[in-house]
Amino acid sequence: MMDVKSYRGLFYNEGLFSTVEDVLAVEEALSISINDIPFTITMRSPGNEKELVRGLLLSEGIFKDTALDPDIQITATNGKGYVTSVNVVIPDWLLLKDFSGSRNMMSVSSCGICGKKTWDEEMDTIQLKKSGVIDPGWVALMFERMSDQQKAFTQSGGTHAAAAFTLEGELLDIREDIGRHNAVDKVIGALLLNKKSDSAGFLTVSGRISYEIVSKAALAGIPVLASVSAPSSLAVDSAEKCGMTLLAFCRKKKLTVYSHPERVLQKQIV
Amino acid sequence: MMDVKSYRGLFYNEGLFSTVEDVLAVEEALSISINDIPFTITMRSPGNEKELVRGLLLSEGIFKDTALDPDIQITATNGKGYVTSVNVVIPDWLLLKDFSGSRNMMSVSSCGICGKKTWDEEMDTIQLKKSGVIDPGWVALMFERMSDQQKAFTQSGGTHAAAAFTLEGELLDIREDIGRHNAVDKVIGALLLNKKSDSAGFLTVSGRISYEIVSKAALAGIPVLASVSAPSSLAVDSAEKCGMTLLAFCRKKKLTVYSHPERVLQKQIV
Repeated sequence: MMDVKSYRGLFYNEGLFSTVEDVLAVEEALSISINDIPFTITMRSPGNEKELVRGLLLSEGIFKDTALDPDIQITATNGKGYVTSVNVVIPDWLLLKDFSGSRNMMSVSSCGICGKKTWDEEMDTIQLKKSGVIDPGWVALMFERMSDQQKAFTQSGGTHAAAAFTLEGELLDIREDIGRHNAVDKVIGALLLNKKSDSAGFLTVSGRISYEIVSKAALAGIPVLASVSAPSSLAVDSAEKCGMTLLAFCRKKKLTVYSHPERVLQKQIV
Repeated sequence: MMDVKSYRGLFYNEGLFSTVEDVLAVEEALSISINDIPFTITMRSPGNEKELVRGLLLSEGIFKDTALDPDIQITATNGKGYVTSVNVVIPDWLLLKDFSGSRNMMSVSSCGICGKKTWDEEMDTIQLKKSGVIDPGWVALMFERMSDQQKAFTQSGGTHAAAAFTLEGELLDIREDIGRHNAVDKVIGALLLNKKSDSAGFLTVSGRISYEIVSKAALAGIPVLASVSAPSSLAVDSAEKCGMTLLAFCRKKKLTVYSHPERVLQKQIV
């Protein structure tokens, strides 16, 4: 059973806006410690924490005994009732040599929270510039431009793309990767290297919008983020907080605005 | 421009098999060091390494100066001509306090390579059991069972599911998450906690099959992995190596077998 949360959005279709209530998947951070030593933070759907951690212990090569189950203790929950922290108790002599509390752990760089003990503190300080308005009628064209270029590049299916535009709709850069986080990092890196980052106002992505995607766009100072797919609860919450306009389900010339609609040109609200 | 690689597969449609040549997206590991200190390993599409790393430096909070570009040096390439290692040179006093070569970096636990300096050594030792045959005609029904349960659980869209079955098609467990890696970890964890891991022969996933998904299934001893979506090059290569049968593009009662077809019942090959 996955938790969902209701959000109010502005649904755009054929030039008209209407308010909608959409249910979005809840995304929350989970801190995992092993023998009280911080091991990792993962963004995930709340629930099944013990299953998630038991699976991770095997797939991360921390604890391989499939017959024995280490004690997985829930050590904190937040105001919403979600588990935010667990501690796994494993006798030291049973830990695989891969794990040591004192080593430098490698992180997976495809995620904005890697390596950050204070991952939400940084986002708390960001307020994106308020200037600029986009015409929702152009958004479908921008996704078309991204997917035209994507098709030209790849024949393989199963890849992600991200593209940066000015708020006026001019394409600045597009990159592809098998990982959606990597595609976003590549576009942002290309903007920086080509000294175009100040012009970037609009980022389109082919995959879901999770917290990390919002975080990456916010750190790059991009005020409007749009996806063909769904946002998570934490993506909308953090976009709201940092002053980002979040557009999702941008398909078939429709879209839904989940935060800061003041940047979306509204000719009429029904 | 994304690199692709051609793979031979066995395409199944309406009871018949034919051999096909499919192009799949290339996935390769990239090691990133900062001032010669190992920072992270990321799985990605080769190409645009400088853009990827420049973007990461910003989105990971390592280096925030957008006007100055640190020197990103390519330090190794492999036999296929792909960059495997880069080093970023940043004067120490310009590194943000978030980064320190000596601290315990947090990893993102949704990935099988986190925290493993020897991530490919472990996979090299795995050889999955050869017993068992699956009927390709059942695969569509197994995905239907997964998606029926998924629909019952979630109303939000944009979530991933993974389900474990016996080789005879009996559903053992199904879990959902906003992250495809988490859904797989939850299923594997649930199998372990419920003492069902020995029975698991078949894992269905809703998302793309990357190296990490193959690695997670292999470490859990599951010999058949199937997705509605595309596999990466490294997924097929590593499945081939560890003795895993990989089925992809399982849609509309069709599928393609990319490795170890000896576990797939073949009544006829055209």
